[in-house]
Amino acid sequence: MTQQSTNNPNSNDELTGETAGVDAETVDLFVELVDANARDGLIVAMGDLHPADMADVFEQMPRPTFRQAVSLLRDKLPADMIAELSEDLRSDAVDLMSDRHLADVLENLDSDDAALLAADLGEDRQERVFEQINASDRAAIETSLNFDEETAGRLMQRDFVAAPEFWTVGQAIDHMRSADDLPEPFFEVYLVDPGFRFVGAVPLSNLIRATRDTPLAELGVDISAAVKPEMDQEDVAFIFQQYNLASAPVVDEGGRLTGMITIDDMVDVIQDENKEDLLALSGVNDGGSYQSVWDAVRSRAPWLGVNLFTAFLASGAISVFEETLSQIIALAVLMPVVAALGGNAGSQALAVTVRAIAERDLLGPRAGRAVRREFLTALVNGLVFSFGVGLMALIWFKDPQLSGVISVAMFFTFLWAGLAGVLVPLGLQKLGADPAVASSVFVLTSVDIVGFCAFLGLASAVLL
Amino acid sequence: MTQQSTNNPNSNDELTGETAGVDAETVDLFVELVDANARDGLIVAMGDLHPADMADVFEQMPRPTFRQAVSLLRDKLPADMIAELSEDLRSDAVDLMSDRHLADVLENLDSDDAALLAADLGEDRQERVFEQINASDRAAIETSLNFDEETAGRLMQRDFVAAPEFWTVGQAIDHMRSADDLPEPFFEVYLVDPGFRFVGAVPLSNLIRATRDTPLAELGVDISAAVKPEMDQEDVAFIFQQYNLASAPVVDEGGRLTGMITIDDMVDVIQDENKEDLLALSGVNDGGSYQSVWDAVRSRAPWLGVNLFTAFLASGAISVFEETLSQIIALAVLMPVVAALGGNAGSQALAVTVRAIAERDLLGPRAGRAVRREFLTALVNGLVFSFGVGLMALIWFKDPQLSGVISVAMFFTFLWAGLAGVLVPLGLQKLGADPAVASSVFVLTSVDIVGFCAFLGLASAVLL
Repeated sequence: MTQQSTNNPNSNDELTGETAGVDAETVDLFVELVDANARDGLIVAMGDLHPADMADVFEQMPRPTFRQAVSLLRDKLPADMIAELSEDLRSDAVDLMSDRHLADVLENLDSDDAALLAADLGEDRQERVFEQINASDRAAIETSLNFDEETAGRLMQRDFVAAPEFWTVGQAIDHMRSADDLPEPFFEVYLVDPGFRFVGAVPLSNLIRATRDTPLAELGVDISAAVKPEMDQEDVAFIFQQYNLASAPVVDEGGRLTGMITIDDMVDVIQDENKEDLLALSGVNDGGSYQSVWDAVRSRAPWLGVNLFTAFLASGAISVFEETLSQIIALAVLMPVVAALGGNAGSQALAVTVRAIAERDLLGPRAGRAVRREFLTALVNGLVFSFGVGLMALIWFKDPQLSGVISVAMFFTFLWAGLAGVLVPLGLQKLGADPAVASSVFVLTSVDIVGFCAFLGLASAVLL
Repeated sequence: MTQQSTNNPNSNDELTGETAGVDAETVDLFVELVDANARDGLIVAMGDLHPADMADVFEQMPRPTFRQAVSLLRDKLPADMIAELSEDLRSDAVDLMSDRHLADVLENLDSDDAALLAADLGEDRQERVFEQINASDRAAIETSLNFDEETAGRLMQRDFVAAPEFWTVGQAIDHMRSADDLPEPFFEVYLVDPGFRFVGAVPLSNLIRATRDTPLAELGVDISAAVKPEMDQEDVAFIFQQYNLASAPVVDEGGRLTGMITIDDMVDVIQDENKEDLLALSGVNDGGSYQSVWDAVRSRAPWLGVNLFTAFLASGAISVFEETLSQIIALAVLMPVVAALGGNAGSQALAVTVRAIAERDLLGPRAGRAVRREFLTALVNGLVFSFGVGLMALIWFKDPQLSGVISVAMFFTFLWAGLAGVLVPLGLQKLGADPAVASSVFVLTSVDIVGFCAFLGLASAVLL
């Protein structure tokens, strides 16, 4: 297989099938090499690995070993591997690199990846490093940095292939053969009018099958959902998914072509956005980076802090019924059942709703239908599980009245949980907030309070 | 822009920027057309839409309207739009279509999409429909169906471009010009040896820049992480992400090229797997399809059922301390604080761990480090929030002993929550189970029991 690998000297023939990714032995080998300060050995071992796998190996090293490896390798630390590192390791590596090496790395990366690295630099260092970069690469990076994080402008690369719409296939091919700053890879030739306005895209698979004298305009495919630089990355990802795009042109206000976004960057965005939603639903802020205890504490403390107060709100609701509780201690024993099942039902409704919002499945009339569906679902599951709870309570306490009270309270808690689970995220979205963030604590607290009040209130009325 | 749109008559010039996707007015228009039985009007309106947007419009119609639209359109229901429909609408549509129309649709789709539709058919109908499909398309669909769901074999399409490694660029281009069953789009030409074994891939962006007499072997890029047909789709998705692939060859046991998987299918897989994890963490099984109340009930009842029993386990733990509770009613009031904060901390640890496992960040030595990090995080947050809980209890009940008891109990609950949150999913994974499924109920129940026992047990010992 290696005889074909002229373009990718970093190929690794062992990377077949289930064994994709790196194993513990590889990591151990690297750690040993670093510990032995074996710079040359390290460089040879790295030569066998794909940059992404190399990054994985470095991420699996203990942090001090990682730093030593970076210092040891100096300018042999490959640019494309640095770009694959997780955020905090990347900034660690950048701190350890010389200005000269960093400037080389920035020149070698696509402008989107280079901007990612440059964004972490302090102002002074950024200026020092930028002075050592050639003017055009520097301009590309600086333009990227002018756009907000998580926008199309940050994600786009400024190398793309554009051709006037009146060119023929032959002219386009000759142009590509002579150009030396083509992106790697690219999937389309973008067509522009004389004002450099984007007018269409020619997939390479069309181009390659046409004769040299075919006008490009005849081969164009309309990519109408053009991306603006200030567009949020989540909206860009939606466009890629909706229209199955491999790359998308980025056009400015005047319709002029300014950049290109490729699907591999979008896959990362999709993963990041999914990760954010999943963690936010469980009350973890800010990506939940998995590197240091301090990061973990910081990403989790805020919602624990909110929960500290909301939990006491629920306690406050219970304290209203102290008199009843002191007379029927079975109520205190059963309270957690109402909270646990109600919380579970609320979390379910919430997760389904947050996911549906993320997939843009709850636009327009579908939101109303979702609320109706959640209500009916809560009705059905509420009936089934209220009966179940009542039955278990009856078997345990042999008290039909108590069993009836917890059944009815459970049923109302289910209804509330279902409605809160769908209305809270929809409401947050309407207010322009992220429906995944904050929803959980509102839903679970309100379910606790409603559940405790229903159970203890009903018990006070019926059982005393 | 439309003058370039020769290859895509379904272009929609309004689909620019933020307005990508469909709006409520479009849906209303379609509903009106269907209600008026305006078949021709419907066909014209559909002509303006991308198949994915068209599918969105159909999904937003009320279900009876959707069925009527399918019946009304008959053979004008486009194949590529049917493939974009959500699972249950797709099977609804298939039920309403004639065998002849369905056969046409299956012939027009890529083999992976066709297999998706065919898989839903009953045995009788599948046989009747297959009889009307030409032999080669039928063979391709049947081969796909031989592979399990969610494997590479199901996802791959059987149209791809392969060339002998000894061919020149010119020969490959001539071949592509004359072939009429090329996939749409494709990004690489796969190189094969005389035994049709995969030996490398030539990106079109390399091919197009080479002269006609260049041997293909010189342009090859090694894609070493070749995909096997029986590989799980999650593993395939990992390979695409890790190596930034646009397409991947699928090779059988003997290394022979049998299919191709493209990134757009992988994006759907990534979304599905993310959705599964997010919903599973909240106790929703089976994709949580958002169409019918019955689906919702069925996807949520199983974990509610389990929770019904685990909730009573926690109650059982409380009942051990009935005597104590009856004497100090403040304990019953404060119990939910321990459960809520402990549950929150457990959910956080769990979500971070499940996500890290999904991203393959917890392999080898990193699992051990994650456990240590969760323990330390729980230690820090435990100290902070135990103090907070103690302080709030002190302010409320003015009882330093009670405040001390809940503080200490809270601290141990935090430690337990952190450890359970990381050890339960890691353990499930070691056992070969999905760490997202079932984790929540184990973690939350154990946190409840430990929290209640610590709080009430300590109170019994100290306060009585």
